[in-house]
Amino acid sequence: MILLDGKKLANELKQEIKQKVDAIIADGGKAPHLAAILVGNDGGSLTYVGHKVKACEQVGFKSTLLHFEDTSISEEFLLNEVSKLNGNKDIDGFIVQLPLPKHINADKVLLSIDPQKDVDGFHPVNVGKMTLGLPSYVSATPYGITKILERYGIETSGKHCVVVGRSNIVGRPISILMSGQSATGNATVTVCHSKTKNLKEMTLQADIIIAALGKPEFLTADMIKEGAVVIDVGTTRVTDTTTKSGWRLKGDVKYDEVAPKCHAITPVPGGVGPMTVVSLLLNTLKATNNEL
Amino acid sequence: MILLDGKKLANELKQEIKQKVDAIIADGGKAPHLAAILVGNDGGSLTYVGHKVKACEQVGFKSTLLHFEDTSISEEFLLNEVSKLNGNKDIDGFIVQLPLPKHINADKVLLSIDPQKDVDGFHPVNVGKMTLGLPSYVSATPYGITKILERYGIETSGKHCVVVGRSNIVGRPISILMSGQSATGNATVTVCHSKTKNLKEMTLQADIIIAALGKPEFLTADMIKEGAVVIDVGTTRVTDTTTKSGWRLKGDVKYDEVAPKCHAITPVPGGVGPMTVVSLLLNTLKATNNEL
Repeated sequence: MILLDGKKLANELKQEIKQKVDAIIADGGKAPHLAAILVGNDGGSLTYVGHKVKACEQVGFKSTLLHFEDTSISEEFLLNEVSKLNGNKDIDGFIVQLPLPKHINADKVLLSIDPQKDVDGFHPVNVGKMTLGLPSYVSATPYGITKILERYGIETSGKHCVVVGRSNIVGRPISILMSGQSATGNATVTVCHSKTKNLKEMTLQADIIIAALGKPEFLTADMIKEGAVVIDVGTTRVTDTTTKSGWRLKGDVKYDEVAPKCHAITPVPGGVGPMTVVSLLLNTLKATNNEL
Repeated sequence: MILLDGKKLANELKQEIKQKVDAIIADGGKAPHLAAILVGNDGGSLTYVGHKVKACEQVGFKSTLLHFEDTSISEEFLLNEVSKLNGNKDIDGFIVQLPLPKHINADKVLLSIDPQKDVDGFHPVNVGKMTLGLPSYVSATPYGITKILERYGIETSGKHCVVVGRSNIVGRPISILMSGQSATGNATVTVCHSKTKNLKEMTLQADIIIAALGKPEFLTADMIKEGAVVIDVGTTRVTDTTTKSGWRLKGDVKYDEVAPKCHAITPVPGGVGPMTVVSLLLNTLKATNNEL
């Protein structure tokens, strides 16, 4: 069984990115510059943005955090901040950390981001280009999954890939990418979701399963065939009194019983999760190099 | 066996559209106005645009055809024509008939269309919004298919839908729509294509098959299960010396042997085909009403 070690791969990719940044600077260029807008003090959001800022430092990127602690800021104010970042030539790419306060229309804010700087890949133009198979910023989680498949040399062409979940941030885009024409695509892809009636019948046929439904330990050994590749996107915090924090992360896959049947599997934590921040860095590097 | 009569349905929908147009005009409003840009004299394109203009007349729309017979017009010239249509307040929606001459970048032209007027639904913004489940212009063929399913009351929720083909104009969008959260969605969807190894194994599982691969009579009776719903998107011209034109249209489905096994099936011609022009009219009506 191959452990698809996202943590290790993320570190390798960060080193590669750092080398590219060093080369840019040695050539007299400027360091890639990623900005993030954060509104409020949501614990999860603070942690995620903190990871992103730290990752920027690790690879030699410049980072700017616009943290508006006051959640009562107006939509107009936020749109104006986005507009300033759109026009700021020193900033290559930026993200607006979600969720936003309820009185602010998140779709409207995302639509106002210059697609060329939308390194989160959430703007409909980027989603549309991805859907059409055109060069685009692909959002962090699906991009991270394709990187794992690529670097571990997992064959996808002609394989049956079953995606469990149809969310806009994971299930939908990864199902499109896996069936698209690319080195980590060309799979026959089935999208399953809450309305699927015969889920086990589907997962048992899968050469590759991507579990992204957000139900801890949902996928059990009896649901997969021998030799499958399993990508576990789930990251649910479950209570665990033995840990310092009082919780730990659980994936959507019952790892202990599923892993022995697999050809390859991502653990949780340390699988897809660490790849997401790297995806953001890779997109920012593309923005710096005007690749899109 | 239910014949999914697209020709009949298209006529019904045109009557409904005409009633809405009459009501708009009775209220003192203006008739919806669709424009089309056509470059050159490609036989197929002339026919398609002709159908569209005729359909506009039938439902009381105003139509404008910008026909540039000279295929040597520059990309800049065409972009300027698009820009003029974008700014023309009398025109609610417009299309650029494809294919364009090779020296003109079609992607660039499509990107220059104001997404609010993009009634063909080809602009990445509209494709992205559709992918994200947001209101959008859906392109003609997938939109027409959903209308057939809706009007004939075909249950899709929880059904296994196998889409054969992953083109940007049919397979990809219809696979997204069928698995999305809508009245004609919520199906478990499998996308098959040229790299699929076990196609028959897949189609035999399908409650609904959407054949959009462009190979005449590809889908045979041994490939479908009893009681399936079959949507045939294929329209290939095959030589037929018994017809006046010397050819006739063939679908992707071997109709004579498949139809008796089906719960419902679209014929070719007279199935999905006639619905595409109606989809364009429905999108134009949405544009007129500023629904998006």
